[in-house]
Amino acid sequence: MTLHPSVAAVRVPVRATLSPLDPGDVVAVACSGGADSLALASAAVFEGHKLGLRVVGVTVDHGLQAGSAEQAGRVVSHLAELGVDETLTARVQVDGSSGLGPEAAAREARYAVLEEVADRLSARLVLLGHTLDDQAETVLLGLTRGSGGRSLQGMRPGFGVFARPLLAVRRDDTLTACQVEGLEPWDDPHNDDPGYTRVRVRRRVLPVLEDELGPGIAEALARTADQLRDDTALLDDLARAALDAARRAEGLDVEALAAQPPALRHRVIHASALAAGVPPAELTRRHVLEVDRLLVAWRGQQWVDLPGHLRALRRDGLLVLERP
Amino acid sequence: MTLHPSVAAVRVPVRATLSPLDPGDVVAVACSGGADSLALASAAVFEGHKLGLRVVGVTVDHGLQAGSAEQAGRVVSHLAELGVDETLTARVQVDGSSGLGPEAAAREARYAVLEEVADRLSARLVLLGHTLDDQAETVLLGLTRGSGGRSLQGMRPGFGVFARPLLAVRRDDTLTACQVEGLEPWDDPHNDDPGYTRVRVRRRVLPVLEDELGPGIAEALARTADQLRDDTALLDDLARAALDAARRAEGLDVEALAAQPPALRHRVIHASALAAGVPPAELTRRHVLEVDRLLVAWRGQQWVDLPGHLRALRRDGLLVLERP
Repeated sequence: MTLHPSVAAVRVPVRATLSPLDPGDVVAVACSGGADSLALASAAVFEGHKLGLRVVGVTVDHGLQAGSAEQAGRVVSHLAELGVDETLTARVQVDGSSGLGPEAAAREARYAVLEEVADRLSARLVLLGHTLDDQAETVLLGLTRGSGGRSLQGMRPGFGVFARPLLAVRRDDTLTACQVEGLEPWDDPHNDDPGYTRVRVRRRVLPVLEDELGPGIAEALARTADQLRDDTALLDDLARAALDAARRAEGLDVEALAAQPPALRHRVIHASALAAGVPPAELTRRHVLEVDRLLVAWRGQQWVDLPGHLRALRRDGLLVLERP
Repeated sequence: MTLHPSVAAVRVPVRATLSPLDPGDVVAVACSGGADSLALASAAVFEGHKLGLRVVGVTVDHGLQAGSAEQAGRVVSHLAELGVDETLTARVQVDGSSGLGPEAAAREARYAVLEEVADRLSARLVLLGHTLDDQAETVLLGLTRGSGGRSLQGMRPGFGVFARPLLAVRRDDTLTACQVEGLEPWDDPHNDDPGYTRVRVRRRVLPVLEDELGPGIAEALARTADQLRDDTALLDDLARAALDAARRAEGLDVEALAAQPPALRHRVIHASALAAGVPPAELTRRHVLEVDRLLVAWRGQQWVDLPGHLRALRRDGLLVLERP
């Protein structure tokens, strides 16, 4: 019997992710019961056990919906049937006072509890089921922020203890893999709620883009994210170095900054404004460009007002950000 | 009588673009008769004459449609009514054998003839009517290419003798400005032909994005283009320097390249592959990443096949691209 291509599509990157681990190591798989994480868990069991790993399924109960405990229970049974060595249900409290939106707050809480669990299990890795479609959606959501490469770099393939082996796998392949393997994924009702921007991107924006611009658009978005992530990492490093080189006791050396290319000047100004206390959500490109004119197009401007009751001004050859 | 906000929205950036010129200078305005270029021509006449400039309207007849000569004639009368000092109709032959698509070939031909005209008129600037909406569309078209920041940087506000003063002005403002000023724009039938990807982006993709993601999306796309243009300029400069530093008689120094960050290595590989003769349309990110593994993850791989019958391989500490 040959392996179904969708099952292979899920297993191959999972194997590549797990292969550096040693026999006896613990790998955790975050599983919501959706097609992506269920296919991921199945592949992790298959590939993990071949490598002699201990595979632990972790399900997070947000307690946000009625019946969420029952749903968590169903995922646990699913994971047990898949053959995981252990399952763990973590209950989280979503902090409504964090100032984050409900989606972001739930995400923060989920990662925090997964990290805690990984620590407790001494897990080498926690696998997350994000697919190429999730990545494309993230890039499109970033477009609305309009902050250049930073907002388009999508999700990282790995960070800290977390890894996303399915980031180049289409969501449809995870659905088909579940079908082929007789797994019954659960549809999170949140995934159909058009009140969430991400749901609208998934249901309406991405399909229209695929219709009008061609079926390769999701892959193109993911590729763009990969490249912009590399670019952003380098530009951020260079901007940090430029900032360090320009830093004086009372401000930033105008001459040193003015000698930098626009891409770095704008990053230095952005970072300095945030460090001085400008609220991130209120700092616009227009502010950055106005402060930049103090550096490279100074004709005696007095100062630039910034959100958070701050001012940027030139004083004795320095760029100073201060409260008036 | 106060100035209508849409007329002001068009005039203000035109004034900023023209203000560095000197009295007696010639400025040319490319005009198709569409709302954007008609509003641009009107603003150029108003602001140009205030500055003592000579304003020449230029219309390009592509000869692509029946009646294109009549249409060019209508634009000429329009321009004359607007009060331009002179009009010029340039006829172009679109080169069907250039290997470019029909849209790109027409564009190339248009810029070439405008440059010629500018030269003949000794024009200081040729104004083009591209709006913020055109910029947003260009960014969305770039998304389909999926080649990172390069494909998302949109149109430049200026290059050579050309300037695009309306790149931050909405198309609707140019339409309203025409209405207010009693100008009758011409609708290019190409603008309604869904056979053109750009038309589908305009009619279907951008409206869906605005509906689902919020009305600020066009501005966000334009902002992103501005930032990515700065970023790309710097990264290209750095990559050129990295390439020069690694260049040896027989290839590129592996050690020197491997010390560079991924963003620069990938650009160096991309540029070197094109220089060696790989057809641009066939060079994918996958090729670049495979060649990169010869540099930073070499475990005795023999070579990497590249389109255009080329191979990348390691020899004596050098990365070599050659025909086998």
